[in-house]
Amino acid sequence: MAGFLVVQTDFGLQDGAVNAMYGVAYQVEPDLTITNLTHEIEPYNIHDASYRLFQSTMYWPAGTVFVSVVDPGVGTERRSVVAKLSGGQYIITPDNGTLTYLAAYTGIEAVRQIDETTQRLPGSSESHTFHGRDVYMFNGARLASGKVSFEELGSELEVKDLVRFPLVPPKQAEDKITGSIDILDIRFGSLWTNIPLEFFKKWGVAYGDRFLVRIYENEVLRYEDRVIFGRSFAQVGEKESVLYINSLLNVGLGINLGSFADTYKIGTGTSWKIIIKKERVA
Amino acid sequence: MAGFLVVQTDFGLQDGAVNAMYGVAYQVEPDLTITNLTHEIEPYNIHDASYRLFQSTMYWPAGTVFVSVVDPGVGTERRSVVAKLSGGQYIITPDNGTLTYLAAYTGIEAVRQIDETTQRLPGSSESHTFHGRDVYMFNGARLASGKVSFEELGSELEVKDLVRFPLVPPKQAEDKITGSIDILDIRFGSLWTNIPLEFFKKWGVAYGDRFLVRIYENEVLRYEDRVIFGRSFAQVGEKESVLYINSLLNVGLGINLGSFADTYKIGTGTSWKIIIKKERVA
Amino acid sequence: MAGFLVVQTDFGLQDGAVNAMYGVAYQVEPDLTITNLTHEIEPYNIHDASYRLFQSTMYWPAGTVFVSVVDPGVGTERRSVVAKLSGGQYIITPDNGTLTYLAAYTGIEAVRQIDETTQRLPGSSESHTFHGRDVYMFNGARLASGKVSFEELGSELEVKDLVRFPLVPPKQAEDKITGSIDILDIRFGSLWTNIPLEFFKKWGVAYGDRFLVRIYENEVLRYEDRVIFGRSFAQVGEKESVLYINSLLNVGLGINLGSFADTYKIGTGTSWKIIIKKERVA
Repeated sequence: MAGFLVVQTDFGLQDGAVNAMYGVAYQVEPDLTITNLTHEIEPYNIHDASYRLFQSTMYWPAGTVFVSVVDPGVGTERRSVVAKLSGGQYIITPDNGTLTYLAAYTGIEAVRQIDETTQRLPGSSESHTFHGRDVYMFNGARLASGKVSFEELGSELEVKDLVRFPLVPPKQAEDKITGSIDILDIRFGSLWTNIPLEFFKKWGVAYGDRFLVRIYENEVLRYEDRVIFGRSFAQVGEKESVLYINSLLNVGLGINLGSFADTYKIGTGTSWKIIIKKERVA
Repeated sequence: MAGFLVVQTDFGLQDGAVNAMYGVAYQVEPDLTITNLTHEIEPYNIHDASYRLFQSTMYWPAGTVFVSVVDPGVGTERRSVVAKLSGGQYIITPDNGTLTYLAAYTGIEAVRQIDETTQRLPGSSESHTFHGRDVYMFNGARLASGKVSFEELGSELEVKDLVRFPLVPPKQAEDKITGSIDILDIRFGSLWTNIPLEFFKKWGVAYGDRFLVRIYENEVLRYEDRVIFGRSFAQVGEKESVLYINSLLNVGLGINLGSFADTYKIGTGTSWKIIIKKERVA
Repeated sequence: MAGFLVVQTDFGLQDGAVNAMYGVAYQVEPDLTITNLTHEIEPYNIHDASYRLFQSTMYWPAGTVFVSVVDPGVGTERRSVVAKLSGGQYIITPDNGTLTYLAAYTGIEAVRQIDETTQRLPGSSESHTFHGRDVYMFNGARLASGKVSFEELGSELEVKDLVRFPLVPPKQAEDKITGSIDILDIRFGSLWTNIPLEFFKKWGVAYGDRFLVRIYENEVLRYEDRVIFGRSFAQVGEKESVLYINSLLNVGLGINLGSFADTYKIGTGTSWKIIIKKERVA
């Protein structure tokens, strides 16, 4: 084991692109341990790429290198960067917003710009559409295996100068919590909000408490109902809704043995808002 | 190489869940060899999870640990268990029927209950919906790497007390074999039955023999035709049906360069019955 | 690290087939590094299997063994072969056309026929439908780990006697280039042609040059427009078409942030022809 390299793209796994990336990395260092985050990010969806990194990087050892390639601007002047997280993991990615969630919630210690013209796979200078293979994976393998240091990879940038998309912070009032619906637990159709467990603790919420939940898309009401807070899905009846604490310790909203997103046609992103209200006992 | 860890879930690979599981395992032991069985089990489909383990565990070395997480009851009182197969492989799974096929066909030597409150990822006690990461994968990595023994993982259970779903055994009469359609060879649409090669040997069947095949769904006839027994698909004409011996040495039923399941709308499970009749030469 | 083994099939990853192959390989040699090319080749699509090998093999170290199993003729008299590429990588595959692109563009040094009856997983002689596991992966693991040599795997064949499907070579005239549309960059819907960068160099093409592009399906015109040549997608406006040099240094045709194949209903294969014409400045 000569280092961990974890790869995420929007390339899918139907063709040879990801495999060529693996080959390039093993040519750099045969003893690397390489694995996939996901390659099924929707094409060009920088938001989801950012979230998936936030969801997984913290579980990996310091020194692990993540290569994330969702790169609609490949071949333009957008920067290529390497970021060092507060936990000691690294991310190599185009600087196009992919680091937004990590900067906001995980903590980025330092960031450097990679020179795409000098730091690239030898012989790849005529290819301008596959930096995932020629620049990101090549440098990821060098960094993960210790063949190059973080400092040697490029010139220092200010963390505050990274490209970011807007995030709406959650808010807590005396009897109302407001948050956004960041993403889906895709396979199961549950909503993952940005409301932290701490808000529920501050309210002293207990399993079995019931709340009034409203979901808005751009100020239009899309869902309204009373929902119980449970330890997990299976603590409500089949097809019943439940508020729960998800695996990132944020509030989730799902249906036991069903899909909340499909049932109520709920989407994700900054245009989708959730409000959770304490109910007065009359 | 410090041990083999094989992972199966119904999580899909579109998000960061499986990757977080990998990270947790490598934190336990960086030199593990981790690989996927499948993550595309239909959500909550315990039957298929059970079959896929039966299909693959026997090909792995003794000591390999399989972690299988199809877990509609996560967060409830359902047990978490570790089973030792007769071949020396281990399975860590919720005790919800996932071990049914292995108990029936492969052989389970011993089983222990894992204490979810003490045997879990440090710091994960507030998360109740992702035992795959916090309990199953964490303990799988410890067992695969030898950091904990089978005996240390929990208290002994009786194999006979494991939760199982019903299986219908195949039957052979003088001129008739009855079986169930367990599962599909998904990509190719062939039916896999529970009728063993031994039944055909007892009848002295030879390639080229022809049988009357009937398929019933809950006693309703869904398919009836004469079908030839061949060594493989390509031994009949394009789009012709063929009985064959599949890779688990059971009888399969397919169409050469076509999908039997799609063509004749055949499903799987205990409600689907297949009858194979010897034909009298008049 | 005891050798690289890379696997491609049309089996998909929904069941236990690929995992059983991995288990067989690790039983041969636990320290192998095994990874996937793709398992999502369309069932029986030998053309695409051939192309995906061409797309990725060159990026792997000498000695890497690729096992490719797209095998509509399993169980028939079709040969099983092992080919040695000019770069020192090996391919184990049924001899059904899968080696066509490698023979034409990469270079095959030598090829041998594997004896399926003696060179197979011990105990697998009654299974005739899963040579991927019993013959190809088993021998792939032995070759990758050095337990058997290329020469020991079977008897020599002539490279010219390999089964191949027809390829149409690209042609360059003074003001016209003709090529075929080999395959899609699936996720993004771009067309990959067989026209090499060298043709554009000979013409002295520069970024920003505009060409008349026509696409024919069996002599029927399916697309006609003027298209700019750019360094990458992002150098044209959103939803605009662009000619570019792809990651294999051939000419590609795509739409920035869109799918060319979907938009214009363009397919791939020898029946699809592309003509690129230099435009006269009037």
